[in-house]
Amino acid sequence: MSLSNARIKALVRRWKIEVPSWAFGDGGTRFKVFRQKGAARNLREKLQDAAIVHQLTGATPSVAVHALWDFADMSPDEARDYARESGLSLGAVNPTLFEQPEYRFGSIGSPEKAARDKALAHLLDCVEIMARVRSRALSVWLADGTNHPGQDDLRARRRRVAEALKIVHDALAPDMTLLLEYKLFEPAFYSTDVPDWGAAYLLCKACGPRASVLVDLGHHAQGVNIEQIVATLADERMLGGFHFNSRKYADDDLTTGSLNPHELFLIFNELVAAGGGKGLYPAAYVIDQSHNVEPKIEAMILSVMNLQAMYARALRVDRAALREAQRRRDVLGAERVLQAAYESDVAPLLAEMRREDGLPPDPFEAYRRSDYARKIERERT
Amino acid sequence: MSLSNARIKALVRRWKIEVPSWAFGDGGTRFKVFRQKGAARNLREKLQDAAIVHQLTGATPSVAVHALWDFADMSPDEARDYARESGLSLGAVNPTLFEQPEYRFGSIGSPEKAARDKALAHLLDCVEIMARVRSRALSVWLADGTNHPGQDDLRARRRRVAEALKIVHDALAPDMTLLLEYKLFEPAFYSTDVPDWGAAYLLCKACGPRASVLVDLGHHAQGVNIEQIVATLADERMLGGFHFNSRKYADDDLTTGSLNPHELFLIFNELVAAGGGKGLYPAAYVIDQSHNVEPKIEAMILSVMNLQAMYARALRVDRAALREAQRRRDVLGAERVLQAAYESDVAPLLAEMRREDGLPPDPFEAYRRSDYARKIERERT
Amino acid sequence: MSLSNARIKALVRRWKIEVPSWAFGDGGTRFKVFRQKGAARNLREKLQDAAIVHQLTGATPSVAVHALWDFADMSPDEARDYARESGLSLGAVNPTLFEQPEYRFGSIGSPEKAARDKALAHLLDCVEIMARVRSRALSVWLADGTNHPGQDDLRARRRRVAEALKIVHDALAPDMTLLLEYKLFEPAFYSTDVPDWGAAYLLCKACGPRASVLVDLGHHAQGVNIEQIVATLADERMLGGFHFNSRKYADDDLTTGSLNPHELFLIFNELVAAGGGKGLYPAAYVIDQSHNVEPKIEAMILSVMNLQAMYARALRVDRAALREAQRRRDVLGAERVLQAAYESDVAPLLAEMRREDGLPPDPFEAYRRSDYARKIERERT
Amino acid sequence: MSLSNARIKALVRRWKIEVPSWAFGDGGTRFKVFRQKGAARNLREKLQDAAIVHQLTGATPSVAVHALWDFADMSPDEARDYARESGLSLGAVNPTLFEQPEYRFGSIGSPEKAARDKALAHLLDCVEIMARVRSRALSVWLADGTNHPGQDDLRARRRRVAEALKIVHDALAPDMTLLLEYKLFEPAFYSTDVPDWGAAYLLCKACGPRASVLVDLGHHAQGVNIEQIVATLADERMLGGFHFNSRKYADDDLTTGSLNPHELFLIFNELVAAGGGKGLYPAAYVIDQSHNVEPKIEAMILSVMNLQAMYARALRVDRAALREAQRRRDVLGAERVLQAAYESDVAPLLAEMRREDGLPPDPFEAYRRSDYARKIERERT
Repeated sequence: MSLSNARIKALVRRWKIEVPSWAFGDGGTRFKVFRQKGAARNLREKLQDAAIVHQLTGATPSVAVHALWDFADMSPDEARDYARESGLSLGAVNPTLFEQPEYRFGSIGSPEKAARDKALAHLLDCVEIMARVRSRALSVWLADGTNHPGQDDLRARRRRVAEALKIVHDALAPDMTLLLEYKLFEPAFYSTDVPDWGAAYLLCKACGPRASVLVDLGHHAQGVNIEQIVATLADERMLGGFHFNSRKYADDDLTTGSLNPHELFLIFNELVAAGGGKGLYPAAYVIDQSHNVEPKIEAMILSVMNLQAMYARALRVDRAALREAQRRRDVLGAERVLQAAYESDVAPLLAEMRREDGLPPDPFEAYRRSDYARKIERERT
Repeated sequence: MSLSNARIKALVRRWKIEVPSWAFGDGGTRFKVFRQKGAARNLREKLQDAAIVHQLTGATPSVAVHALWDFADMSPDEARDYARESGLSLGAVNPTLFEQPEYRFGSIGSPEKAARDKALAHLLDCVEIMARVRSRALSVWLADGTNHPGQDDLRARRRRVAEALKIVHDALAPDMTLLLEYKLFEPAFYSTDVPDWGAAYLLCKACGPRASVLVDLGHHAQGVNIEQIVATLADERMLGGFHFNSRKYADDDLTTGSLNPHELFLIFNELVAAGGGKGLYPAAYVIDQSHNVEPKIEAMILSVMNLQAMYARALRVDRAALREAQRRRDVLGAERVLQAAYESDVAPLLAEMRREDGLPPDPFEAYRRSDYARKIERERT
Repeated sequence: MSLSNARIKALVRRWKIEVPSWAFGDGGTRFKVFRQKGAARNLREKLQDAAIVHQLTGATPSVAVHALWDFADMSPDEARDYARESGLSLGAVNPTLFEQPEYRFGSIGSPEKAARDKALAHLLDCVEIMARVRSRALSVWLADGTNHPGQDDLRARRRRVAEALKIVHDALAPDMTLLLEYKLFEPAFYSTDVPDWGAAYLLCKACGPRASVLVDLGHHAQGVNIEQIVATLADERMLGGFHFNSRKYADDDLTTGSLNPHELFLIFNELVAAGGGKGLYPAAYVIDQSHNVEPKIEAMILSVMNLQAMYARALRVDRAALREAQRRRDVLGAERVLQAAYESDVAPLLAEMRREDGLPPDPFEAYRRSDYARKIERERT
Repeated sequence: MSLSNARIKALVRRWKIEVPSWAFGDGGTRFKVFRQKGAARNLREKLQDAAIVHQLTGATPSVAVHALWDFADMSPDEARDYARESGLSLGAVNPTLFEQPEYRFGSIGSPEKAARDKALAHLLDCVEIMARVRSRALSVWLADGTNHPGQDDLRARRRRVAEALKIVHDALAPDMTLLLEYKLFEPAFYSTDVPDWGAAYLLCKACGPRASVLVDLGHHAQGVNIEQIVATLADERMLGGFHFNSRKYADDDLTTGSLNPHELFLIFNELVAAGGGKGLYPAAYVIDQSHNVEPKIEAMILSVMNLQAMYARALRVDRAALREAQRRRDVLGAERVLQAAYESDVAPLLAEMRREDGLPPDPFEAYRRSDYARKIERERT
């Protein structure tokens, strides 16, 4: 038997998704950043946009921040207070370790001591910021790697990364976590210092108990079974969190759920299974996207809705029936149990849940009916 | 029997490679453009850098230009004259159809008439520029595509592209060619309007006799046999040219020959085979790279040297022995014929060729010994 | 506005899917063929199994046959009559060009004249068989290719294939078609003679009006946009048909719709769009799967149900709303139109359709409740 | 400065490569096993073929065996003695855990206790065989996995595998090792129980000190940097060995070095670097190939020669110059150090080494001139 609708609503309602400040500002490809009218120009505006997403969905009370980008105009203390006034809190602090010329050959993986020192100092600054903004997660993505065979010693790079991460880890307060992201390629094209989950796992283990792995859905080679990685990391208690997005070939950072939503469902299926009946496996659930041709706030709301729907579908899986089919080696019966949940229409249930919570049943349409978009287009020029 | 060394030298000597103006200026990834000291800031400086490459290699007398980028400070007439004074000519004209806000949804594939009109006008301007700079190749790469399923009608996009290309094709003088590039993905992530060689072929056929397909080595899905595409296009007399570079996963635009050089050799093997004993199949051979962490002029010289070496190796293939092994179904014997040529050391032969031509035997080292790099670092600040 | 439910039911009802005889017999991987109790051992038993699929789904009145495998024990005339008695007809005739030792280096692409002659004779035999069994489609898949660079001349192979296909094409009666399949790799690993849709397209064009391209969903490189290929081929009126199945990495031949069903939906969306309001684009719709761990008849029924559901979803797309969203450049609005159709629950509608047709509302469950599986397990030993 | 030629010869001479018994028998794809005249039909004949490879190359004194296949006609004791008489020893023992019907749902990962018990018993038998044949390596590849989402519990499968491997590990004598292979896909298509190096690493760590990871060059997703995995495993002292072969897209099992030999060079470059100046990192170096269209013994000799050449090239890397270029951030200078070694002609040096050892300078040609092939074609019918 599946969970009751009431239980599903309760679990979905309880689940909080973090949105990234950077998705509200202009982003793009290496060929072009298309400016959008009304795109947020600073943290204040990003928090305003995040607040509207939360007001409409009730699901996104925290905002991940990017250390250098977000605290240019606003101190961490101001940011924390402004977030609180907006009904939000600040979430994961993301160091920015790829934009300055010193990082040409990497940050903490660089062969240049000056680069490593600068990067390490920035990471430790981020820990300071975390304390100030009451954030509990340091979310580390390294652009480090090489473009040419021979450019650097691959083992030396790994050791440098390990050494710095250990220092950062040890500087964290006991209730803080270090989330380490891996990525197959880009912006380094020949080798990436943390290329896959195995590499991230080993680095985290070497750090200590406060480090765990963050899975970004766009960071894998084609053909990789991501839900199996998720299951493995959860089984090892080393799954720290997610960066949600969607992709076709590379790290496309498209709206979550827009391509191969079935894969997303299978990931949630593992997360629910690993949650042991108490909802999702506990981790940092963060959206990480880049909106080029579509309106940013709409895309964020849609992503949140897609995530909630996928979670609800995973909760609809009749786990007793699934286990029974597995027990009987009923391969297709088991698949049909998943299929029934995946294909079930959860929109009415989620609309009901939102209504009960005083939220618009379709937050996307509610946003469109609001005049927020027109307002920011007018005001932010 | 392989060709004689004299014949190989003669053929390599005769082969001219085009260098791209844009590789001498700063480029980068979506995360960061690293500024290099001494990087060319305008067409004049790019032509200076191209001239030094040609002086040292004797192999790169022409320079591909990017329409909007290169004629900002210099008119086509001035550019043509300045190139000539520098011992160069201008080569393929590349329209720039992805940077302006109108192109948010594409250029000639856009659903917006204003965008299509602007793009078509720019393409026709490029034909004008070609006449002015004595260029015979219009090299068209479209960034057009979609990021979301449903965003646009895929068949309509294709027809719009076909319609515009036909107009441009018909505007070309009889000795001009339209080279159409295809690309799997990026910057559009869900669909690309000209995604593969088949799509490019059909569009070219619909244009007429002056259109043919351009192969960029970084624009294929993983696992695709590029040399077979080259052989097929050559067999159909629809192979218009190349954009040379190297890649590991996506369109990495690394130095030609730096990764999987054996694949490059196999491509040259097909080009020599299709050349019917008279050297390479006639086409536009152009380098297209983006140098992020390595010095740009050095990288260009190295790419030219790698290309010449690969051509020389392909000329070393004992084609009679290969045919004979194939005739006897001697699979490994045939492979060994290719292997012998691939593994043969062609550096001495190419050094000799260069000496005979009054060139430095190792252009890369000669460049390093020159004070050109220091000079431009000093002067271009 | 979407189509009415009545219209959707009428269109789905009218759509006929062909099942492959070979999926009812034992198949496997290169490591192991697992024998299934009750698996069909000859064409008679395959037709019995196909008949039960058609009885339960009402959707699969024809059966694709494999020339050598299926006519070992039964002549074409007997097969045709037995099929008719079973309420079926025979569909596409598939030549078998890869099993005999002569085909070591290929069939019609082989450098060995004896192999080519044998293969051509077999293909012409297949045309004879088509006449006898009243089949209108010759469905050609070539295992031809090479494993080693240099093993054969790639252009020569292509010409040999073209020459033979032309002869076969010209031997077809006017109402017969030649469907040409392409495949990236396997069983040849270095090069495949018809590796992609572009290659298949050119070969078909060279044959004449009765040749068109067949798309097998498992035959593409990773990251390729298959629905765009479908749209292109349909637009060129060169889409001849499909081999349906599902895959994760290579040509896995899994149950249709079991992985990335959203991609299948997007393909149907293009087929409905290309159908111009009259249902699917007209083509040969054939399932091609290999069932290793799951019961074969169940897997086939499930595949048929998944295909019908996907077609129904594609018919649910509100095309006027989609066009309007596209017209307004409402990227996310357009995506939501597709999403609404994809996520809509079509099971009740299809159950209703089946009931109206005197069919079981859930053919999969009906099969399980029948004693057919037990019967064949008992009888076929 | 590079190593002296004398030193390079000494190191290459000392390096021993293991050949697989199974490559001398007939193999194939799922579509067809092409029988070769003279292919070995049993272990005796496989050992005869391996002996000729060793006689001609002097490099392959041991033969990996496949437990069920190889001891059908010959007991382990007889095999050990026969190998010794042939100038060989038996190497890694490979369990055969995929052919029997019990393994339909896996072996030690199966949900069926009977299958797990049978598989575990077979693994423990293999340990017995190892003692008998004086083998020190148990080389475990699992075909285990699932084809359908939901078919089994992914975490449960992992735990079952871990449990059995631990028992096997603990049954090993102190000087024995368990080598665990990973593989992305095939023959399971949805999930594989040991899909990547990270999964293999964790399982080995859980086993204990005698378990380490085996890298098969054909078992990775496209785009993965294999040399970096090798460097990481070596750095962690968890690199147990290799299965050498070559591939274009999947696990093609082609002749080692035939495709992308540069990647193989970069792997050897890491192995030499990790060897700390004393030659290669110590591990089990085993060839694992399947020869379909080429003569098997020739293909094996060519693979051995390609491996030796690649090792020699890696030894030619001027490591001091490489380090110096890296120290100066001379990206292209560093790459040129590798390139110089990769492009250097090592054939004369290896021919000299072989002559000094009383071996034919070109073992491949020597084999062709011998009448061994004709002899076995005559005798094995």
